[in-house]
Amino acid sequence: MYRSHHCGQLRALNINEEVTLSGWVQKSRDKGFVIWVDLRDRYGITQLIFDAERTPEVIVNMAKSLGREFVIQVTGTVIERTSKNPNLETGDIEVLVSKLTVLNEAKVPPFTIEDQTDGGEELRMKYRYLDIRRNPVKNNLIFRHKVTQEVRSYLSSQEFIEVETPYLIKSTPEGARDFVVPSRMNEGQFYALPQSPQTFKQLLMVGGMDKYFQIVKCFRDEDLRADRQPEFTQIDCEMAFVNQEDILNIFEGLTRHLIKSIQGKDISSFPRMTYDDALQTYGNDKPDIRFGMKFGELNAVSQHKDFGVFNSAELVVGIAVPGGNSFTRKEIDSIINWLKRPQVGALGMIYSRCNDDGTYKSSVDKFYDQEDLAQWAQVTGAQAGDLVCVLSGPTDKVRTQLSALRMELAERLGLRNPKEFAPLWVTDFPLLEWDEDSKRFHAMHHPFTAPKPDQIKLLDSDPGAVKANAYDLVLNGNEIGGGSIRIHDKATQALMFNHLGFTPEEAKEQFGFLMNAFEYGAPPHGGLAFGLDRLVAILGGQETIRDFIAFPKNNSGRDVMIDAPSAIDAAQLNELHLKVDLK
Amino acid sequence: MYRSHHCGQLRALNINEEVTLSGWVQKSRDKGFVIWVDLRDRYGITQLIFDAERTPEVIVNMAKSLGREFVIQVTGTVIERTSKNPNLETGDIEVLVSKLTVLNEAKVPPFTIEDQTDGGEELRMKYRYLDIRRNPVKNNLIFRHKVTQEVRSYLSSQEFIEVETPYLIKSTPEGARDFVVPSRMNEGQFYALPQSPQTFKQLLMVGGMDKYFQIVKCFRDEDLRADRQPEFTQIDCEMAFVNQEDILNIFEGLTRHLIKSIQGKDISSFPRMTYDDALQTYGNDKPDIRFGMKFGELNAVSQHKDFGVFNSAELVVGIAVPGGNSFTRKEIDSIINWLKRPQVGALGMIYSRCNDDGTYKSSVDKFYDQEDLAQWAQVTGAQAGDLVCVLSGPTDKVRTQLSALRMELAERLGLRNPKEFAPLWVTDFPLLEWDEDSKRFHAMHHPFTAPKPDQIKLLDSDPGAVKANAYDLVLNGNEIGGGSIRIHDKATQALMFNHLGFTPEEAKEQFGFLMNAFEYGAPPHGGLAFGLDRLVAILGGQETIRDFIAFPKNNSGRDVMIDAPSAIDAAQLNELHLKVDLK
Repeated sequence: MYRSHHCGQLRALNINEEVTLSGWVQKSRDKGFVIWVDLRDRYGITQLIFDAERTPEVIVNMAKSLGREFVIQVTGTVIERTSKNPNLETGDIEVLVSKLTVLNEAKVPPFTIEDQTDGGEELRMKYRYLDIRRNPVKNNLIFRHKVTQEVRSYLSSQEFIEVETPYLIKSTPEGARDFVVPSRMNEGQFYALPQSPQTFKQLLMVGGMDKYFQIVKCFRDEDLRADRQPEFTQIDCEMAFVNQEDILNIFEGLTRHLIKSIQGKDISSFPRMTYDDALQTYGNDKPDIRFGMKFGELNAVSQHKDFGVFNSAELVVGIAVPGGNSFTRKEIDSIINWLKRPQVGALGMIYSRCNDDGTYKSSVDKFYDQEDLAQWAQVTGAQAGDLVCVLSGPTDKVRTQLSALRMELAERLGLRNPKEFAPLWVTDFPLLEWDEDSKRFHAMHHPFTAPKPDQIKLLDSDPGAVKANAYDLVLNGNEIGGGSIRIHDKATQALMFNHLGFTPEEAKEQFGFLMNAFEYGAPPHGGLAFGLDRLVAILGGQETIRDFIAFPKNNSGRDVMIDAPSAIDAAQLNELHLKVDLK
Repeated sequence: MYRSHHCGQLRALNINEEVTLSGWVQKSRDKGFVIWVDLRDRYGITQLIFDAERTPEVIVNMAKSLGREFVIQVTGTVIERTSKNPNLETGDIEVLVSKLTVLNEAKVPPFTIEDQTDGGEELRMKYRYLDIRRNPVKNNLIFRHKVTQEVRSYLSSQEFIEVETPYLIKSTPEGARDFVVPSRMNEGQFYALPQSPQTFKQLLMVGGMDKYFQIVKCFRDEDLRADRQPEFTQIDCEMAFVNQEDILNIFEGLTRHLIKSIQGKDISSFPRMTYDDALQTYGNDKPDIRFGMKFGELNAVSQHKDFGVFNSAELVVGIAVPGGNSFTRKEIDSIINWLKRPQVGALGMIYSRCNDDGTYKSSVDKFYDQEDLAQWAQVTGAQAGDLVCVLSGPTDKVRTQLSALRMELAERLGLRNPKEFAPLWVTDFPLLEWDEDSKRFHAMHHPFTAPKPDQIKLLDSDPGAVKANAYDLVLNGNEIGGGSIRIHDKATQALMFNHLGFTPEEAKEQFGFLMNAFEYGAPPHGGLAFGLDRLVAILGGQETIRDFIAFPKNNSGRDVMIDAPSAIDAAQLNELHLKVDLK
């Protein structure tokens, strides 16, 4: 037996007990006649005391030689501390050690095992097993476990069944790029790793499973952007005999349960907004509604004067920055410079200060009078003390820019409170989106999403206008989930494939099994998938998913700890009937 | 809203309520003036009645055209059945339909959707989504969900944390063959899919996670034997600061909890047996102890006469078949023929009948007298009415043959009761096993298993004799879990790699990260992994894992439903820097 208690367990109640503890040496203080060692494990820290008067000399000498992160086992008596530490749960006691065993020595770790470490990202990833010893990482992993436990318990209580779908499936060209797995037993053929269990969960609905979920790894071989991982985890869900309303209710229930059980916050109901409204009001389809700064469209009140920049613009749109009139000229210049960076790409910004006395002072006073500026203030909802920031240009572009500005200012003003949770349903997504590269429409969600029934007739005349019964769940400005009502009949599915540029043969080759299944009694069905990594990060009040993944990959898709991917030997390639063909 | 109730829900209490149901047409009986339809969903069956007197004619006519597996929605009134069906939970009522909508038509399914279907295995796999509608398959999947819920809840209550480890890892030549995944972004390099999260769970222990578990898919590219899958699921567990006793206790607790919560049976404690004893007593390392027929070694009481077959044998060993004296000569011949099949490969069998009057009648009466046969009976534990079956030959071979015979006879005698649960720990496995093909020792469990400390010195002189702190959990003659105490210091790990034929460079190349980790304070640790597919099957009183997997692959590793693996297009191969190289 390596321990009678763990290192977060002993209290004043245990005084005089003989105990055995095991753990890591967090730090030691050698005062000559007495040595204190902080012993750490997953559960906490217990102070050990080695005392020249009460501890055998040989033990004291061993204690003197302990280095940071040594793994030790001690036996001793719990005693009351002379100077208690109210910040530590075990702070009332210490253990007077009578027996010490070094279970394993440790080299000096390449960074400090402290909440604030001196190790950079790359170093911490290479030694991730040491990084995990640090509270912030360890606690994030424990937090993730709690979230998944709550998800499973809630969905199970709602009669969802977790079904494991296969990982070795079939490659399809639609969507993102697949990771593929060569088959040794089927020469020249490949499996693909699932981008999601989409078709399988639909087949489970055809199979009568009624309510399905799965917490499951998914894979996308995409060029990695910051904070994307080639493998990621979904809470994947599907239900039969439901319409959109049923689905929103169930997953609103799940999300409410999570926010309540994990963070203790009650959210009464989730607001809803159409995709079109979200774009118009916040400039993007995943608005952070913890704060205001809603868009005010200013064309009507800004295109009647001689200001050519506005007059030639498709859209003139502004936001009222709360308290922004206090910004110095230098602060405003910094905002304008931020907007002009290539990542945002605005040409400039017009602003109008809303003075406390009810007057306005704008950067375009030459063109606009007080009455004009008062209208700008009214449209954007600006109050005295605010700053109206205005951008202009092509609608899509200027919305994206102003949305970025809105988020940036919220960040600078501290309006993105990580302890506040503001969920939002965004509904009525377009069915298709135009892809400039391939000069064709792609499915915005995926090719199994049902068009709104009354809009199917638009598919030929105006495909970009067709809306789908598709919805995203947004939390604090992040898309944490998305889904749709699916097509459940072969004819509509064939129509959809046709509009996505599949020949009937290609559709049959790739999705024949699904279209066949639709002929044997497919029920109406729909679902949703949450991105677990991001959901957990947001629920934890953070935004970097990497901090909630035990062994993440870097931006080149490498695991720098185990050094993967790597070369494989010729015999292995040979068995797989493959040759590496470097250009 | 597609339904107010599901099809297993309505009772006499609901009589006179108006309800809406959705589901599949299980069957319909058209009596002309009245039509009954059994409507099925995941939860049950509800009888619908269409009645020429009370149902609108247009609805009656629609009802007449409903085919099997049509998906329909009905609204109607719950009424009391004239002839109740006590075998059906909803058997007291039926629904008098006033509104009928066909949600989807269905072609005639290729096999009947009944508990006993007319579909063969291959057909059911191709249309697995229809197979899942059948109760036996559906119930197995629901059963699996319940088991995993109980596993997670028990382990979480014991402070285990479920941590997701990566699927895209590094290929290593040790163990079974890896599935590999070519990396597009890292030219000419490959990830491997994990055969198990072994090294990651050990790194989590180095990282102080203390108690880890994960229900996780694992992958092995092996030539498939019957009832093996290229992807399978493990309950993977690891603990720090534990010895073997701690681990056995925890997972005995888990298994006891499962048997109790799932099957309502109390198992007081799990017997333990060493590997050597298991081989000696049952001829294999996963004995089914639901029944006796323990091996009795007969060398001492059979090699003193003129019977050359026994005299020249390394081992003469027998079992007492309970009640076997009632076997006819024909039955015994059939047993002998069964033994002689190439799959078993015995040359023959000697037997001795234990008559009710205390006399014996053997097939070798020419050589052995009553006194000899009495000793055989005594050694094998045979009672009057039993049959002693004796095999002889080289020890390993004859044990395997007699073990096969023991299982076969238990099957024939109905001694393998699927409702009885007999767990057993088999401990003290050998560290290494000799591989004839490669002419070297392989790790019996895996290369991270710790030798028993007092036997390390034998590694040079007699490596095959070294035992490990390795253990299997056996349930009803199936290995459902296995694990070991791991090596946690770099020196022992290097020694082990050396004995497995790795050069120091190869060891560093493949497992350098683990050996490095051992230098930064690795705690003593160990663990265990359950094969979930088999565990669930055994707990469900069955033995075929395929029946507990939603979408299994066939014996060629193919998913015949989606037709995977399949060819991928040239552009995809090109991006991966690969060429298919068929011989």
